Amino acid sequence: MAKHSIILGNVGNFTDRFMGVGYQRDYTLEEMFDRVKSVKGVTGVELVGNWHINERNFKQVKKNLERTELSLVSIIPDHFGIPEYGKGAFTSKDPKIREKAVSDTKVMIDIAVELGGDLISLWPGQDGYDYFFQGNYIDERGWFEEGVRACCTYRPSCKISIEYKPKEPRNFSYASNVTSTLLMVQQINLSNLGVTIDYGHGSVAGENLAESVAILKKYGNKLFHVHMNDNYGSWDDDMITGSIHTIPFIEFFYWLKKTGYEGYISTDQYPYREDGRDACNESVRWFDVFESMVDRIDEQKITALYETGNACDISAFLRDLMFGR
Amino acid sequence: MAKHSIILGNVGNFTDRFMGVGYQRDYTLEEMFDRVKSVKGVTGVELVGNWHINERNFKQVKKNLERTELSLVSIIPDHFGIPEYGKGAFTSKDPKIREKAVSDTKVMIDIAVELGGDLISLWPGQDGYDYFFQGNYIDERGWFEEGVRACCTYRPSCKISIEYKPKEPRNFSYASNVTSTLLMVQQINLSNLGVTIDYGHGSVAGENLAESVAILKKYGNKLFHVHMNDNYGSWDDDMITGSIHTIPFIEFFYWLKKTGYEGYISTDQYPYREDGRDACNESVRWFDVFESMVDRIDEQKITALYETGNACDISAFLRDLMFGR
Amino acid sequence: MAKHSIILGNVGNFTDRFMGVGYQRDYTLEEMFDRVKSVKGVTGVELVGNWHINERNFKQVKKNLERTELSLVSIIPDHFGIPEYGKGAFTSKDPKIREKAVSDTKVMIDIAVELGGDLISLWPGQDGYDYFFQGNYIDERGWFEEGVRACCTYRPSCKISIEYKPKEPRNFSYASNVTSTLLMVQQINLSNLGVTIDYGHGSVAGENLAESVAILKKYGNKLFHVHMNDNYGSWDDDMITGSIHTIPFIEFFYWLKKTGYEGYISTDQYPYREDGRDACNESVRWFDVFESMVDRIDEQKITALYETGNACDISAFLRDLMFGR
Amino acid sequence: MAKHSIILGNVGNFTDRFMGVGYQRDYTLEEMFDRVKSVKGVTGVELVGNWHINERNFKQVKKNLERTELSLVSIIPDHFGIPEYGKGAFTSKDPKIREKAVSDTKVMIDIAVELGGDLISLWPGQDGYDYFFQGNYIDERGWFEEGVRACCTYRPSCKISIEYKPKEPRNFSYASNVTSTLLMVQQINLSNLGVTIDYGHGSVAGENLAESVAILKKYGNKLFHVHMNDNYGSWDDDMITGSIHTIPFIEFFYWLKKTGYEGYISTDQYPYREDGRDACNESVRWFDVFESMVDRIDEQKITALYETGNACDISAFLRDLMFGR
Repeated sequence: MAKHSIILGNVGNFTDRFMGVGYQRDYTLEEMFDRVKSVKGVTGVELVGNWHINERNFKQVKKNLERTELSLVSIIPDHFGIPEYGKGAFTSKDPKIREKAVSDTKVMIDIAVELGGDLISLWPGQDGYDYFFQGNYIDERGWFEEGVRACCTYRPSCKISIEYKPKEPRNFSYASNVTSTLLMVQQINLSNLGVTIDYGHGSVAGENLAESVAILKKYGNKLFHVHMNDNYGSWDDDMITGSIHTIPFIEFFYWLKKTGYEGYISTDQYPYREDGRDACNESVRWFDVFESMVDRIDEQKITALYETGNACDISAFLRDLMFGR
Repeated sequence: MAKHSIILGNVGNFTDRFMGVGYQRDYTLEEMFDRVKSVKGVTGVELVGNWHINERNFKQVKKNLERTELSLVSIIPDHFGIPEYGKGAFTSKDPKIREKAVSDTKVMIDIAVELGGDLISLWPGQDGYDYFFQGNYIDERGWFEEGVRACCTYRPSCKISIEYKPKEPRNFSYASNVTSTLLMVQQINLSNLGVTIDYGHGSVAGENLAESVAILKKYGNKLFHVHMNDNYGSWDDDMITGSIHTIPFIEFFYWLKKTGYEGYISTDQYPYREDGRDACNESVRWFDVFESMVDRIDEQKITALYETGNACDISAFLRDLMFGR
Repeated sequence: MAKHSIILGNVGNFTDRFMGVGYQRDYTLEEMFDRVKSVKGVTGVELVGNWHINERNFKQVKKNLERTELSLVSIIPDHFGIPEYGKGAFTSKDPKIREKAVSDTKVMIDIAVELGGDLISLWPGQDGYDYFFQGNYIDERGWFEEGVRACCTYRPSCKISIEYKPKEPRNFSYASNVTSTLLMVQQINLSNLGVTIDYGHGSVAGENLAESVAILKKYGNKLFHVHMNDNYGSWDDDMITGSIHTIPFIEFFYWLKKTGYEGYISTDQYPYREDGRDACNESVRWFDVFESMVDRIDEQKITALYETGNACDISAFLRDLMFGR
Repeated sequence: MAKHSIILGNVGNFTDRFMGVGYQRDYTLEEMFDRVKSVKGVTGVELVGNWHINERNFKQVKKNLERTELSLVSIIPDHFGIPEYGKGAFTSKDPKIREKAVSDTKVMIDIAVELGGDLISLWPGQDGYDYFFQGNYIDERGWFEEGVRACCTYRPSCKISIEYKPKEPRNFSYASNVTSTLLMVQQINLSNLGVTIDYGHGSVAGENLAESVAILKKYGNKLFHVHMNDNYGSWDDDMITGSIHTIPFIEFFYWLKKTGYEGYISTDQYPYREDGRDACNESVRWFDVFESMVDRIDEQKITALYETGNACDISAFLRDLMFGR
């Protein structure tokens, strides 16, 4: 049975490149914790380095975790919002910045462990390139692997999980899709290293995310964490899960169950124009729908469907499952 | 209340560029009519020129229409499967071929009327271009308008409806999306000329089809016909309607109702590996689901939603409408 | 002969939703004017309302225009960076905000005229919707037309030009592509209303921009302004013009010349990680290349190519034009 | 120095799903061999199983190879054009068909070796799925690996190379992109197994193909073969190489050289409406341009560019390399 969590910033304020002042008002850390807590069924929270947690506000965060009884699901080190990392963190052409990416991560590992966490979700958003002839692909992938390896060996009890995304903020990311990332995970070859699926990132990469879950199962049981949102397919729109798609989410949750995924399922949204708390609540309510639907799937029936792959039978099966007709 | 129909070839055999021999067996005209007839709730059939109907088999088709009591919903003249039209029909650089495109259409208009039809659905699939510097865009759009105008004035009692598609078989089509086509319809400015929405073509064009229905309503009530199928967004996959998407179809059917669309809703699929009859049946069964859901929409509630546009309320509303939770 | 200009902010600092603090340092207004001026061949500048020009800094801007002898090419009113416009400006569900969108535009019209300008380039970035069932499409397009009409009739000597874009910051824009916008321009039907092509926006809309130039020529000579940048096709990456594509730009500049476009060609970029001045300079240097190539096109040869549309001949012609082989 | 070849069918006739009769006339095997031979600089030919080579016409093909002195670059077994393979070859849910996929491949291996070839380029076009809940992803990827392994161990002196493609004719392929395929290649772990890059397939998968070359180098030197064509980014348009893009091809050829690729570079096109021989010739002429440009790259300059990654310098460098300005 999956556990549900929310990335703290999801209930806050949002900017984009045109609305630098933010679409809404800012919230205090306390308010944000309360807003997460108010979503029924949510038992965990994720924090972004610098944005929500650092060495200076450590005690304040600890107090909020205790007060709300939310588990620290993961820390996402800030490798994307610091100008020094603007041209890459683990893959910066400057070796000092590459070192800093590792040492900053170690700080976050220590903080996470101290707060009772056991997971770092790395999102190497700036590790990539924009222009042709800009990236020295072999060297830079090598640097990425080196840096991540150094993070993994620092405290092997803490899991490190790489969140992939094909583009944004770089035009091309090195950890671009599930198999590109898995290849690096296999190359590094450490048991505390895995992959975070962000549903929307995978969609933009052209993946059917249920298949991505299966691939991570097949090649080493490497699904370590899940971020959820919805989009229209060409960009990381970061919308309410379930607001655009339905059937692919049912299949996704089915494969999570089938492969025995036991981690958290977090919202990871940018509800620019919505109340963030309400938008997260909506996603979690849709998680409930998809999970209860998966629980109602008759194993015998679905086994038979997989044996033939008959699309008309699948269609009828889903219509019945979803709408009883 | 919408009426349902099927394009005859949808229950037949299918080829693609790699499987030239066809994925299945061929069916006789009689068999195909029987297969269409066997789908519950279907009262009409569409025919493709040459492929299903021509001057030679006219009587045979007539007999089948009578026998099955299916209405002739439209004829789609074959402007795409004849080598002479390979580089364009209405927009061919050869004026003789442009003339032929018009005269072939007139033949189909006569046949349609004779068989009790009142609609020609033009799909100008070859009217476009592949390479940069290949299309003389102004002239060729002009030729397109001239040719369609000549078809419209031939028998004004017969409606002519242009089906748009962004690409395939050309890399760029002239009638590429709903507004590109509407612009030509306005330029030609004849009351018997309108637009056919193919749901999948519009999706590939990046449209939200509910909005396309609204646009056609706003600018002259020009939605004349509807073709249905589903796809993954980047290509005209021509799959079972409802097999990929759910909510966008609910919105689409809602706007069909809201704008008072009274024409037929046809399947337009390529079930390469499925039994065509069963695949059409599945689509029609999903039409039933979407239509009954639209019928259950509370007008007061939805009016309130449109007044605020609150995405969280919309999400909750849809979850309740779809799944009662 | 086209004239070249730069949007002032292009030589400044840049943020995105992850790097809210900006990738670079900020520049003063004076510095930015100097940076624009330093790009060889640039004779004009575009200003964004609020960001660069308002009622308070009017004199400072005027002084900078005089000092640098740059022409004011256009003002782009800020309909996208003010929280009140977060859910729409001309199409806000709140009539007071719709009125404000018009009155804010009128202020910018007055300022532009006072500064010697004759063009307002409207970019209605927030006028659209994000979720299904959120936009009341017919009403909202109607409001858009009303608002723009009010701007156009205010001072008919000032041209108003609508810049279209399929998405971002909304998931769906009303002025989404060239024909969607042209349809509204035709509906409003005023001679001082036209369309701004942003090359990258059109690419994301799936357009071949040379064809878009032709379409604007055909239906009323409505190309009023041009913004330039390059991208990978799925998103408005706002890169250096010519850094990704080559042949499509040659065709685009060819059609600008062929249709007699005489306005400015502006850079419109987001060089997050580059020096903005240098990135603009690069684009302008590529403009020079494309324009000189177009000037070398032999009219007789190209007329012959358009008569046959032979793709192999076109390929050989371009290879010779570009590389002399 | 790369060697150039042509897939025999590229100089023949072409069908699509609408133009089943073919856009052009058919050519005899002799004519096709002559047409390939007539393209300057081409020294090899690729053959598709069944379509061009089988046990019955073996001698005829042999004679043509000798007559034209073209090398047999590879055979592509027909796993996509036989109805039995319509729902999968190596991944068919029917074990007998999976066995047939292997045994058919073995026949082609024997023929290839007999004709002096040492490469089988597998294109598993039907190995994938169309609908959600249709593919049993873990089992089916496993079957794929089993089948390919059996082909590899049959005659280890013959290289086997998997050509990936994200979709078409299935909506999702198992060998979908470079890293998905490399993962299977690593799992099978045999030295005669590698990957074929089809430039257009990779583009549709969202790859920058120069990076794909680098990735194949980094993880085991696994680039075994190259197929060339061009497209608009969203579909396998199979156009003349160089007709759409320029700079990305320069970078691609640069990385081929940099990584020491020594195999053949083949055209793989579908010039539906062009003379196939002329369209192949155009591609090969563009190969010449790109290769000569790469040869003119100053190693010191490019090393400096890679050290900074300065996009403006790269832009200036390319403009000078391409156009001397």
